[in-house]
Amino acid sequence: MAACIFCKIIKGEIPSFKLFESEKVFAFLDIQPLSHGHSLIIPKHHGEKLTDIPDDQLSEILSVTKRIAAASGATDYNILQNNGRIAHQEVGHVHFHMIPKPNAEEGLGIGWPAKKTDMDVLKRLGEEIKAKM
Amino acid sequence: MAACIFCKIIKGEIPSFKLFESEKVFAFLDIQPLSHGHSLIIPKHHGEKLTDIPDDQLSEILSVTKRIAAASGATDYNILQNNGRIAHQEVGHVHFHMIPKPNAEEGLGIGWPAKKTDMDVLKRLGEEIKAKM
Ligand SMILES: [Zn+2]
Ligand SMILES: [Zn+2]
Repeated sequence: MAACIFCKIIKGEIPSFKLFESEKVFAFLDIQPLSHGHSLIIPKHHGEKLTDIPDDQLSEILSVTKRIAAASGATDYNILQNNGRIAHQEVGHVHFHMIPKPNAEEGLGIGWPAKKTDMDVLKRLGEEIKAKM
Repeated sequence: MAACIFCKIIKGEIPSFKLFESEKVFAFLDIQPLSHGHSLIIPKHHGEKLTDIPDDQLSEILSVTKRIAAASGATDYNILQNNGRIAHQEVGHVHFHMIPKPNAEEGLGIGWPAKKTDMDVLKRLGEEIKAKM
């Protein structure tokens, strides 16, 4: 994807504060961090959403994310991957945020508008999703 | 972990709307969903935070998450894994949320208090984290 900013970062055409690189994974600091240590971990394979990335390009992502979380020294942190503009995705290349949460003000803000539990709806939905997997 | 609610769900001691199970991964519907299709994907290995889970227990998580996102029919969705109470973790066994985002009101709410970019700070931090990996 010639126009993709993250593909350009992977190729070194745009500079980044690189933390890690392997055959399939690239990681760098977010330059508009929510907190000190906010990092991005991405598959080198270009794809907009998680469902666009082949399994073999996903298997190493979480172990790299874990290593960066540990190396950042963060005790509390959020791992976040957004799919779609309405879901707060701003670059159309799959990326996992590792966002330290040092205190209530810094880091990811989370809104949690939980719905009422409806066991009948959940039972039907569970069967539907299982049938499609 | 005898007292862990998710370990009990894995063992079948507490019922769940199970979506998937393999040797290392278990997935089920969240019974207090933020949106229709809100699911939880967990390693069977008990550990409180991402940094507590061995790499080989993490490698399949995202491919399962991807399959559930696809099967749910969601176009837009957030993948979220919280570490620590301050980071909104409510059960002390690592879990990945797959939360469909059908509209602005339902699904995950996100607050994004971005800090100012400081290239000197980022350069030092990048070197520090790399040195610890
Ligand atoms: Zn790209
Ligand atoms: Zn457990």
